[in-house]
Amino acid sequence: ENANLLQMQKDSLAQKLQETQVRNAQLETRLSDVEERLESSRQEGESFRKSLRSLLELLDGKIFELTELRDSLARLLEDGSS
Amino acid sequence: ENANLLQMQKDSLAQKLQETQVRNAQLETRLSDVEERLESSRQEGESFRKSLRSLLELLDGKIFELTELRDSLARLLEDGSS
Amino acid sequence: ENANLLQMQKDSLAQKLQETQVRNAQLETRLSDVEERLESSRQEGESFRKSLRSLLELLDGKIFELTELRDSLARLLEDGSS
Amino acid sequence: ENANLLQMQKDSLAQKLQETQVRNAQLETRLSDVEERLESSRQEGESFRKSLRSLLELLDGKIFELTELRDSLARLLEDGSS
Repeated sequence: ENANLLQMQKDSLAQKLQETQVRNAQLETRLSDVEERLESSRQEGESFRKSLRSLLELLDGKIFELTELRDSLARLLEDGSS
Repeated sequence: ENANLLQMQKDSLAQKLQETQVRNAQLETRLSDVEERLESSRQEGESFRKSLRSLLELLDGKIFELTELRDSLARLLEDGSS
Repeated sequence: ENANLLQMQKDSLAQKLQETQVRNAQLETRLSDVEERLESSRQEGESFRKSLRSLLELLDGKIFELTELRDSLARLLEDGSS
Repeated sequence: ENANLLQMQKDSLAQKLQETQVRNAQLETRLSDVEERLESSRQEGESFRKSLRSLLELLDGKIFELTELRDSLARLLEDGSS
């Protein structure tokens, strides 16, 4: 009878272990998936900011050129009124 | 003897189960942490793009106003040469 | 005979004087016309430059606003990468 | 006596003629001076407007380039949110 009881307990443990291992494997799959998405999101964000930095430099150039144009207009007005 | 063997197998299964459950708990903690970071990264990205969209609208306004200024200058030149 | 000669010289002088006075009147008309055009051209030039000065101030404003927009973009990029 | 009177009238006419001719010469000098200034003012105005037309073309270029930059930013925002 003791042996029967032990066999039942053993079977129950074996089943619980299997279930826990399955759950484990699922968690690991999900974790690696989410980590991949986080890394890809980080890389996209970096590439996005890199493109924005290029646009910022372009904008700096345009503002500089508009300022030169503004100075030319100011000079023209000064020459014209002298 | 059979009972002894079963007891040993049972103990071994019980230990493995405990280890797997510990690993499970660790994985769940890590998963919820990474999911939190992914969600926070998504929210930051969204708020970042929202700010950029505001800047884009501002830029649209500035380009429109520069175009009006350009048209005023063109009209001034046309009137001046007639 | 002397009186006849004098009369002829006097008539000739009177005619020359009249011609010169006519020419004089024409010159004065033309002069006042050209002076009027010069003054009107001066006033147009002044009003033209005044309008240009307004456009220059508008352009200054637009450049200032573009620079503020540029600074907002730069700040956004700094916050985003920290 | 008649000859005396004619001589006096002739002298008076000769003097008036001379005065009118002097006035004439002065008017012609002044006229050519004012005409010169009008022509020079016209040429300055033309050269001024030519410079302004160059600035207008430059401004067109800058507005075009700012619009391209704006479109790049808009595209970046569209790609980033898909």
